[in-house]
Amino acid sequence: MGVSELEIRVRYAETDQMGVAHHASYLVWFEAARTELIRECGRSYADIEAGGWLLVVVEAHCRYRQPARYDEVLVIRTRVREVRAATLTFAYEVLRKGDGEVLADGHTVHAAVDRGGRARRIPEEISGLLVPAVPEA
Amino acid sequence: MGVSELEIRVRYAETDQMGVAHHASYLVWFEAARTELIRECGRSYADIEAGGWLLVVVEAHCRYRQPARYDEVLVIRTRVREVRAATLTFAYEVLRKGDGEVLADGHTVHAAVDRGGRARRIPEEISGLLVPAVPEA
Amino acid sequence: MGVSELEIRVRYAETDQMGVAHHASYLVWFEAARTELIRECGRSYADIEAGGWLLVVVEAHCRYRQPARYDEVLVIRTRVREVRAATLTFAYEVLRKGDGEVLADGHTVHAAVDRGGRARRIPEEISGLLVPAVPEA
Amino acid sequence: MGVSELEIRVRYAETDQMGVAHHASYLVWFEAARTELIRECGRSYADIEAGGWLLVVVEAHCRYRQPARYDEVLVIRTRVREVRAATLTFAYEVLRKGDGEVLADGHTVHAAVDRGGRARRIPEEISGLLVPAVPEA
Repeated sequence: MGVSELEIRVRYAETDQMGVAHHASYLVWFEAARTELIRECGRSYADIEAGGWLLVVVEAHCRYRQPARYDEVLVIRTRVREVRAATLTFAYEVLRKGDGEVLADGHTVHAAVDRGGRARRIPEEISGLLVPAVPEA
Repeated sequence: MGVSELEIRVRYAETDQMGVAHHASYLVWFEAARTELIRECGRSYADIEAGGWLLVVVEAHCRYRQPARYDEVLVIRTRVREVRAATLTFAYEVLRKGDGEVLADGHTVHAAVDRGGRARRIPEEISGLLVPAVPEA
Repeated sequence: MGVSELEIRVRYAETDQMGVAHHASYLVWFEAARTELIRECGRSYADIEAGGWLLVVVEAHCRYRQPARYDEVLVIRTRVREVRAATLTFAYEVLRKGDGEVLADGHTVHAAVDRGGRARRIPEEISGLLVPAVPEA
Repeated sequence: MGVSELEIRVRYAETDQMGVAHHASYLVWFEAARTELIRECGRSYADIEAGGWLLVVVEAHCRYRQPARYDEVLVIRTRVREVRAATLTFAYEVLRKGDGEVLADGHTVHAAVDRGGRARRIPEEISGLLVPAVPEA
């Protein structure tokens, strides 16, 4: 519960002239993985937005340990790290599927914004879904 | 009138592992250049959208002749090619600023969609702005 | 043979403020789908590049019929359309998985470039893999 | 010295369906701004790469305070924050040009990698260029 794994394959367009995946791609993968985690918690993020709530990113952080390469299959392991009154934090690890090596890790912090664009306390309908998960040892 | 030039510098993130700008980047540059052309015609596209009209892309085409490289300055030369009842066509040339070489050319076709998401005839407030320009000899 | 289907899920980062997938994303999906088609033909594109050949995009075209939306699952149906002495053409259809509706179609034309950056005839090791497929009726 | 400002205009492709610039775009802007800072320090990053050194991103961080919107002109203010034996740190602020409001800030940490892909001490030819700058009060 509160942990999810998404497999993605590195796209050619995601590489840069260093011959590895560009560092901004990781934030896009984090987002795709977060979408899956939320879905597995019982409700799609698309549905949350349709219901009038946006989870805006207020902070993003990533450490890059080893490069990811074109056509490699990666696993984006995601968990809810913290649910506070005003913010939610997700934590991520990017692993190479072939050998399980951790290529990167990071986190994003989110605030809830209502239809009128105002920051609000995280509503119960969201915080009730997203139970923080302890990382595996 | 109806012709515009936008300079852009190729970003590192826009390159791929071939060491050149990725081909999808050209559509993004075309769009940025179209934004400037519309602004020079007297009204910003942001304002057109705020007024309730979207110009959706219904077709895009690009021919790639020479690669664009990281940090090169390019000129995106854009013109209104055709204004019809239901569609607008913009034409583009991508030139290397240093030597004027044409690296790519293309076009995009757009339809007008109203606030309700329905395709409509190009409204006079838009077609009146965008006068087709003959390409220079 | 010579036909492949890749499923992708529309990422949030791929949307724009119209609320639909940005039109440049389709070229990125075409590329990911082409990668899978080539793999299914018996050799990975990564391996082709490692062997010293690049298949550069010399032309791209897309017609957009219906918008693709965040979190929708799409099927990118790809086939080898033509193998000529100097160029390869791939054709694509983008379908919404839920109801099979065709959202877009397009094609890309590729030339073979050797390690020295020179355009060459399509080498037999590539043309032998990629047998043109007739579209289904 | 050691401080630079780059103006960029938010592209349509950089927005997402929230109607604001996607959070991954900021890392791309940081990179473009870093390119300009390095150039102003006396040598282009393209030239550094041609000379056999890569400055790979080992960490990236961004705090998002206010959204950036389509067609807004932003100023990316960049400075060298720290030069250590093994890492370089750049700091960034993203300001809305119109009113000077700070929309975001962040930093990236870089390591030097040689032609063989090995991490190395920051070479003198790079550390000599990039003198840390104190932020303005």
